[in-house]
Amino acid sequence: ALATPALAQSLPEVRWRCQSAFPRVFDILYGTLERISARVAQLTDGKFRIQTFPAGEVVGALQIVDALQQGSLECGHTASYYYIGKDTAFAPFTAYPFGLNTRQLTSWFRLGGGNDLANEHFADYNIVARTAGDTGAQMGGWFRNEITSLEQLRGLKFRIPGIPGQLFTRLGAVPTLIAPADIYPSLERGVIDAVEFVGPHDDERANYVRVARFYYAPGFWEPGARLHFMMNQRAWAALPDSYKAAIDVACAEADTEMVARYDAANPPALRRLIAAGAQLRFWPRPIMEAAWRANEEVTADLMQQNPKLRKIMESYLRFRTEQFQWFRVAENSFDNFAFSAAQTVR
Amino acid sequence: ALATPALAQSLPEVRWRCQSAFPRVFDILYGTLERISARVAQLTDGKFRIQTFPAGEVVGALQIVDALQQGSLECGHTASYYYIGKDTAFAPFTAYPFGLNTRQLTSWFRLGGGNDLANEHFADYNIVARTAGDTGAQMGGWFRNEITSLEQLRGLKFRIPGIPGQLFTRLGAVPTLIAPADIYPSLERGVIDAVEFVGPHDDERANYVRVARFYYAPGFWEPGARLHFMMNQRAWAALPDSYKAAIDVACAEADTEMVARYDAANPPALRRLIAAGAQLRFWPRPIMEAAWRANEEVTADLMQQNPKLRKIMESYLRFRTEQFQWFRVAENSFDNFAFSAAQTVR
Repeated sequence: ALATPALAQSLPEVRWRCQSAFPRVFDILYGTLERISARVAQLTDGKFRIQTFPAGEVVGALQIVDALQQGSLECGHTASYYYIGKDTAFAPFTAYPFGLNTRQLTSWFRLGGGNDLANEHFADYNIVARTAGDTGAQMGGWFRNEITSLEQLRGLKFRIPGIPGQLFTRLGAVPTLIAPADIYPSLERGVIDAVEFVGPHDDERANYVRVARFYYAPGFWEPGARLHFMMNQRAWAALPDSYKAAIDVACAEADTEMVARYDAANPPALRRLIAAGAQLRFWPRPIMEAAWRANEEVTADLMQQNPKLRKIMESYLRFRTEQFQWFRVAENSFDNFAFSAAQTVR
Repeated sequence: ALATPALAQSLPEVRWRCQSAFPRVFDILYGTLERISARVAQLTDGKFRIQTFPAGEVVGALQIVDALQQGSLECGHTASYYYIGKDTAFAPFTAYPFGLNTRQLTSWFRLGGGNDLANEHFADYNIVARTAGDTGAQMGGWFRNEITSLEQLRGLKFRIPGIPGQLFTRLGAVPTLIAPADIYPSLERGVIDAVEFVGPHDDERANYVRVARFYYAPGFWEPGARLHFMMNQRAWAALPDSYKAAIDVACAEADTEMVARYDAANPPALRRLIAAGAQLRFWPRPIMEAAWRANEEVTADLMQQNPKLRKIMESYLRFRTEQFQWFRVAENSFDNFAFSAAQTVR
């Protein structure tokens, strides 16, 4: 008889369950997990199958880290910064105010030590993770009234979570945390004055334009927002090397593909939003400057309070200094001229 | 006896040879091919091996398309635009003056029809290809003298190939094609006045700073330069689906990884170049505007001359209009403030 190849015998059938932090309606966010799953199956000839679930179908949308830590789920697709209630060190792996943009963040993760720092941190929760998709720079959200000066931020009830909420507190606003389902009616009735979400493609689905038409740019607290494909450490360790490689590349592909999808979808979505009444506005420079200073203060405080965050941010901010200096030279000087040339060059 | 799994029997041992268009000294360029090869081997448990060769070891650096067309090589890693001598339609798949930047180009390839147009074109050469790495926005090159006005471009002997060469011809310069080995001595002796190459990391190795110290930004004719992993059609068609998937993802990973490497390597390289005497300069706006207009003329001519190019550029330019408008909103407004805030906000 023919010898059975040792290789084939050693590649096991593996079934994992993976929950997204997002519902199906946010098709690029949820779809990224579906594409990762399809790629892994394809690469392993169907032997490694990851069943995907939208938020809430296995555990709560914000309970993925807990489920992975306990081992009740093999993997999840989520933003790390949803877990800053456990530890502020979860924040910079997703987005940080005035931080690295999408491309720079990729470089920090891959070449600047970011992936090692992330996995060192996640290991405390029995988690191994890979970056897996990004939204690109987000928008600054929907406001019932135009914001022309810092004074108008005083007392403004703004639905904005996490560290950006702390930043806006320093600017005099009142970050308000309400459940997603309550945002629309709260804006409509004026219980809140503003909400920030993602960008045109997802914001169109949320439909805030009908109740808060001033649409601000940029979301300076999310110059990119990276998702992670998080796995229970024991489940990861049990995988054959080629299955680990399949996850590595499927997630790398997600980093390329997800932002490409947002970049293609956002321009027509923004046009439709403007046709529906959205008033596009840019933050006045004095607000941006005050926000930059507030962020420096919040960051200094957070780094002092949390040595784990300090270690991560020292790497992140060092890398940021290099990136910001270099990007001004070739990338930004090109973008600044070219993006407006069709309107300005005669 | 145990039944031999049908699956394992069907996965063949495959050996391919792949030549890069670049020598080893350009480590990020050549290393991208090495990483693709390593990934494919890892994903296929070593059954699909791609042996890599630097430029010239199998065929000439600029003969990859010919070798693939004839089937004397299974795959190559190159810039498509090296082959505009055959057909100008090869140009926009790598870079186009005042065109899409790296991230926008990825979106065009994946969501805007670019990959289909590229493969439709490459099929005429028996080639199937995947995008596989990008340099990011390039620098404008090294000049013996400072360029402060359009008049100084008249008669300037500039080593710049392809469509950008045509653009500079319209600006009065004299594009000069000399072999790579002759560039340094020609600059030193003043036989040429300027040379364009890539960006700080690669330019440092070429060492032009010693003979032409004015270093211009941006390389507006290469707002990103995409490489392709090109394969002979018959070799590709013979692959099992999981091997095809392995190439797809390894190339997608290269799109993420290569520019991340450039982004990490360029800032310290630029610092070293400046320490070595480089004088960083930005193109004066009148030159950028004249170049924009010259590019519109060159592009209109090329599109009129070549229906294949016209079809590609119509897709590309339509996508560019959308991208440039949208990127001004969130991405560029963030970048413009944040990149300089550490120096300007007090």
